[in-house]
Amino acid sequence: MPIVEFRIDPWSSEGLRDYEKLFTYFGVRPFNEVVHQLESFGPLPLPIRRGAVVGHRDFEKVLDALKNNSGFALLTGLMPSGKMHLGHKMVIDQVIYYQSLGAEVFLAIADVEAYGVRKLSREEVINLALNEYVANYLALGLETKKLHMYFQSSYRKEYYRLIQLFAKKVTMAELVAIYGEDLEPAKIMAVLTQAADILHPELPHFGGFKTVLVPVGLDQDPHLRLTRDIADRFSDELGFTRPASTYHKFLSGLTGGKMSSSKPESFIALTDPISESVSKLMKAFTGGRATAEEQRRLGGEPDKCPVYELNQLHLVQEDEKLKKIYEDCKSGTMLCGECKLATAERLRKFLEKHQEKLAENKEKARTLVELPDF
Amino acid sequence: MPIVEFRIDPWSSEGLRDYEKLFTYFGVRPFNEVVHQLESFGPLPLPIRRGAVVGHRDFEKVLDALKNNSGFALLTGLMPSGKMHLGHKMVIDQVIYYQSLGAEVFLAIADVEAYGVRKLSREEVINLALNEYVANYLALGLETKKLHMYFQSSYRKEYYRLIQLFAKKVTMAELVAIYGEDLEPAKIMAVLTQAADILHPELPHFGGFKTVLVPVGLDQDPHLRLTRDIADRFSDELGFTRPASTYHKFLSGLTGGKMSSSKPESFIALTDPISESVSKLMKAFTGGRATAEEQRRLGGEPDKCPVYELNQLHLVQEDEKLKKIYEDCKSGTMLCGECKLATAERLRKFLEKHQEKLAENKEKARTLVELPDF
Repeated sequence: MPIVEFRIDPWSSEGLRDYEKLFTYFGVRPFNEVVHQLESFGPLPLPIRRGAVVGHRDFEKVLDALKNNSGFALLTGLMPSGKMHLGHKMVIDQVIYYQSLGAEVFLAIADVEAYGVRKLSREEVINLALNEYVANYLALGLETKKLHMYFQSSYRKEYYRLIQLFAKKVTMAELVAIYGEDLEPAKIMAVLTQAADILHPELPHFGGFKTVLVPVGLDQDPHLRLTRDIADRFSDELGFTRPASTYHKFLSGLTGGKMSSSKPESFIALTDPISESVSKLMKAFTGGRATAEEQRRLGGEPDKCPVYELNQLHLVQEDEKLKKIYEDCKSGTMLCGECKLATAERLRKFLEKHQEKLAENKEKARTLVELPDF
Repeated sequence: MPIVEFRIDPWSSEGLRDYEKLFTYFGVRPFNEVVHQLESFGPLPLPIRRGAVVGHRDFEKVLDALKNNSGFALLTGLMPSGKMHLGHKMVIDQVIYYQSLGAEVFLAIADVEAYGVRKLSREEVINLALNEYVANYLALGLETKKLHMYFQSSYRKEYYRLIQLFAKKVTMAELVAIYGEDLEPAKIMAVLTQAADILHPELPHFGGFKTVLVPVGLDQDPHLRLTRDIADRFSDELGFTRPASTYHKFLSGLTGGKMSSSKPESFIALTDPISESVSKLMKAFTGGRATAEEQRRLGGEPDKCPVYELNQLHLVQEDEKLKKIYEDCKSGTMLCGECKLATAERLRKFLEKHQEKLAENKEKARTLVELPDF
C-alpha cells in the first residue's frame, strides 16, 4: 500500500478508524514501551493507567525532563464548538496529571479554527470556550498557577511572527500530501496556527522550553507530523526541537460506534442536567447478549461495552473494583440492567460533585485570559 | 478576450506592459477625470502634475474627505530589497503631498514578503528598510508627525486578527484567478497581509478612518482588487469600505526599456555616489536620432527619452523651463550631449542636497519604529 494514499483527515467527524496504520506507516510508537518509566513519578491518571493512551512520539524527552527536573511545557488546544463531554475529559485528565508533575501548561483556544472551519460568531466562541470548556477544566482540577491560556485571535506578536515564518518554509505540495486537495486559505491558516501553538513555548519569549508535550487523539497526528518537520526546518534559525506527543483512542459512543458531537445521545456532557445524562446512560448500547438467559450462559462482552468504558476511564478509580465489574460481566453474574444502575449511581455522584465545582469556577475562567477584541 | 486570461503578476520583474487593459477590463478610471478637482487644494507634486499618475479607483472619496475636512489615511508599503531609486521616489513624492494635505500616513515595511519571496535575512531587511528607504523618505520631506510606521512582522495583534479573518472569507479559487496557479503558503500569507495593511486604518484601534488612499504602480492593482472584495465582505462585520487607489506609470530605465532592480545601470539610486549617478546618466539611452545631422533636421523624441523623463518627473519644477527643454529637443535646437550635461548638473545639485539631508535623517529612522525581534 503506497504510504501517500494513507491520509488522515483531522477535520473529519469520522475520526480515525484504523489507527494501526499510524504505527505501521507513520512511526508512532506504542505507549506501553515507555509507560512503566512514568510510574515511578506517582500514580497514573485513568486514561494512561487503563490503556487509552496507546501511542507516542519522542516521549523519552518528557521522561528525561522529569528525571533531570529540567521542566517541560504541555500544549493543549480546545476547539470551542459543541459541549464538553467525557471524551474531552480524557485529554484534560492527562493535562492535569502532567501539570501535577511540573509541566507548564499552554492552553490554546482555537477560536480562529472555530470561526474559519465551524462558522461560529465571536460571542458564541468566547462563551463556549470559557463557560463550557475552561470552567470544566478548572472544575476537574486544572491549576491556574502553571497555566498560560490564550485565544489564537488575541495573543502576542511573537506568536504571529511564527505563523509568518512557518508560511515561508511550508509548501503547498506537502500540505496537500498531508491534508488532501481541499485546502482553502482558512485551513492553511489554521494549520500554520496550530504549528505555532505547539512550538511557541520553545521561544525565549514564552519560557524557552526545550521539551513540549502534546497529548492528543490519534486523528490529530497529521498536525504533529507537519509541526515536527517545521521544527526541523527552524532548528538553526530558532533553535526549535521536535515536540513530544501522545495519542489516545477515542471513547466509544453510548449508542454504539463513535462518539459524535452532532449526536448528543452518543456522549455525556459535563454540563448537561444530571437526569438527562443518567437517562442517556440507561438507554446506552452495551456489550450484553440478545437475552438474559444467553448472557447468564455466555457472559457479557465488557471490551465492547461503552458502559464498561465509562467505568474504566472515568468513574471507577480503584483497580480491584473495576476488575470485579469486568469479571462479574464476563461471567454472566451481573447483567446489564444491574450494571447500568450501579454505573448511573457513580455517574450521578461524579456529576453532582463536578457541577458543584463547576459553579465555583464559572466566573474564574473569565479572569484568566485576555478576551479577543473583535 | 476572456477576462480571466488577462492576469497581472504583481511579483513579476517584468511589470505591466499593456496597462490599458486595466481600464478596459478591470474598471480603473483615468486620473485626468478627477485631477482638476485636486488642484484647488494647492500645487500638485510632479508625478501628478506631469501625468505619471494615470489611473484611480474611488478617488472621489479622497476628494470628499478633503472638501469636508474629514480626514483620511494613506497606506504605502516598502519592500526592503535593493536600492531606493527615483522610481520609488515617485510614490513618496505623492505620499508627502497627501500628507501635506492632511493624510495620516501608514507606512508598512513589507519584511514578511521580503523574507518570504525575496529570501533576505532579518538584518539585511531591517537595515535596508531603515537606512536605504525610510531615511530617504525623511530626507525627501516625509513628516514624522502624521506617520505610523511598522514592520509587518512586529505590529499590533488587531492587525494580525485581520489576517486571520480575511483568510476565512477568501477562497483558493479566487486567489488562483487573480494570481495564477503558483500559490505557495508564503504568497497567500503575503497577499492577506497586504490586505490587512490596506484596511487596518479603518479599524477603530488605528484611527477608524473611513477613507484609505493607496497610491501604487499599475502592476499592484491585483492586490487592490482583492482588498476591495475583502472590504465588501467585511462591511457588515467590521464596517469596512473599499480603499481608494491611484496608479502611476513606471519610470523608464536609463538603458531603454523598463527600470529593473537587478540592472543597476537602468536606474539612479538615491544613495549611490553622485559621480556614479552622473556617469549612468551620461551613458543613458535617449530619444536622439542616429546622427547629429539627422537630429538637427528631424528633432529629438523627448516622449521616448528617459533623460527627458528625469527632468519631467524629478529635476525640473518650473513648467516653463521644462517646456523649453521639450521644445528645444523637438526642434533639434538642443542635441542630447548638451541636454545630458545640463541634466547632469541638475541631478548633481539634487543629489548633493538630498544626500546632505539623508545624513541628517539616518539616525532618526531607527527611532520611529519598533524593530522586529526575530
